[in-house]
Amino acid sequence: GNSDVPVHKKQRVEHNLQLSYADRAELPNVHPLASKLLKIMEEKQSNLCVSADVTSSEELLQLADSLGPKICMLKTHIDILKDCTVAFTQKLQALAEKHNFLIFEDRKFADIGNTVKNQYEGGLYQISSWSHIVNAHAVPGPGVVKGLSAVGKPLGRGCLLIAQMSSQGSLATGEYTNAVVKMAEEHSDFVLGFICGSKITKRPEFIHMTPGVQMQTGGDALGQQYATPEEVICSKGSDVIIVGRGVLEAADRLKAAETYRKSGWDAYEKRMGHNGQ
Amino acid sequence: GNSDVPVHKKQRVEHNLQLSYADRAELPNVHPLASKLLKIMEEKQSNLCVSADVTSSEELLQLADSLGPKICMLKTHIDILKDCTVAFTQKLQALAEKHNFLIFEDRKFADIGNTVKNQYEGGLYQISSWSHIVNAHAVPGPGVVKGLSAVGKPLGRGCLLIAQMSSQGSLATGEYTNAVVKMAEEHSDFVLGFICGSKITKRPEFIHMTPGVQMQTGGDALGQQYATPEEVICSKGSDVIIVGRGVLEAADRLKAAETYRKSGWDAYEKRMGHNGQ
Repeated sequence: GNSDVPVHKKQRVEHNLQLSYADRAELPNVHPLASKLLKIMEEKQSNLCVSADVTSSEELLQLADSLGPKICMLKTHIDILKDCTVAFTQKLQALAEKHNFLIFEDRKFADIGNTVKNQYEGGLYQISSWSHIVNAHAVPGPGVVKGLSAVGKPLGRGCLLIAQMSSQGSLATGEYTNAVVKMAEEHSDFVLGFICGSKITKRPEFIHMTPGVQMQTGGDALGQQYATPEEVICSKGSDVIIVGRGVLEAADRLKAAETYRKSGWDAYEKRMGHNGQ
Repeated sequence: GNSDVPVHKKQRVEHNLQLSYADRAELPNVHPLASKLLKIMEEKQSNLCVSADVTSSEELLQLADSLGPKICMLKTHIDILKDCTVAFTQKLQALAEKHNFLIFEDRKFADIGNTVKNQYEGGLYQISSWSHIVNAHAVPGPGVVKGLSAVGKPLGRGCLLIAQMSSQGSLATGEYTNAVVKMAEEHSDFVLGFICGSKITKRPEFIHMTPGVQMQTGGDALGQQYATPEEVICSKGSDVIIVGRGVLEAADRLKAAETYRKSGWDAYEKRMGHNGQ
């Protein structure tokens, strides 16, 4: 009977934590891009997204080429590059093809629908033309998703909603987070998951991605707070670890990326009970 | 005694609505840029900010030059311009000088402190180098203000926090709005006011700016909702009306801007009791 199942196993079952990335890629209602991501994760044994917070296009391309084999996704801030060109975004797309990772422009769209439409499609960056995934704050209401979707859905793009943040004193908690989950569920044809600190919906179609990951907990002088891969994947039930300074500030970035990849994957295997549990 | 004061006058006194823009410009704790804005408003008899949501640099400059005499502030979305250059931002600054208005880049920064620092200062747009005022969402917590302030305060810039939004289903309500007001009060050396639908603090040093203003109430297909200048300034106690499509979609933009300027100013005079009240 049910009472024989150990508590930690019951929790895994209840939260769908026992479904593998590969299983979830095949779910009937999964967003095509979420499915693609989950397959990449399984294939590359990587739930690591590196946050490429550098200010030189050349350095970003080098990073993408060298770390490409280790990651399922590369997170960019195109608007901090001092020398961005159309040629750069083309090269970045080619590297994403070469190494089989997705590009996620961390734009945090946060305006009314009519404005984000223009910001996503237009301007110098033309984000919708090269970024597989973008994210948005839910604070403007559902119009922000509708505006982005009008541009991105016909292109096969997808969107993450920011449900929680890793920074101190964030207002994305409680009822706010609940409202974000509801908004995602109501727009699951374009929204494929969340930026969050922990698993916030039981629906296994959605991807949970967690920023602020380092090997040691702690923070920076501007309110960032860190959690470890093990905490994020195992305890919090998230799917993808987003690592920035933990890789970028390492003496050997490739070695650091491999350490995070292994740590994130080991945590996933542990969650799945593949370590003899 | 107090009981002789008519109710509407009592409300004005309680909410400091009787203080003129000129009076508030001289308050001891006012932010230098808020003081400058209030003086411009008084001098030009304009509480009109036009939202220059066009996608051509040339058109934006023409707009700034022709509407310049009517406005206290020009709101931009630099990231929707298809042909932005450094020369453009220099020309825009020259027009702001010529016509005595402030530039407000409506970037809606919404990331952790370390990231917004780079987004504000760097990239192709170098926003901090030409925009007097920017705005930010409070959802990341106080780090977003600290990050922006580290760049903008030494340059004499200022920031508006987004406390409420004009879009349908916005999550910026209730406790969220209260938290934004508290965050502004704790960082009043850099935060000079709010994007909001109505007056949300009694402290007269803060500027209240309201988007989504048109002559007729209504909305668009992506959740935008409109209020009139009279409602915004008189009933809601805000200070500045932000008008986009009401001016941009008019056959005669200059005439439309003058209509909004007069309407906004008349509403302010009415609030001040200058219409024989």
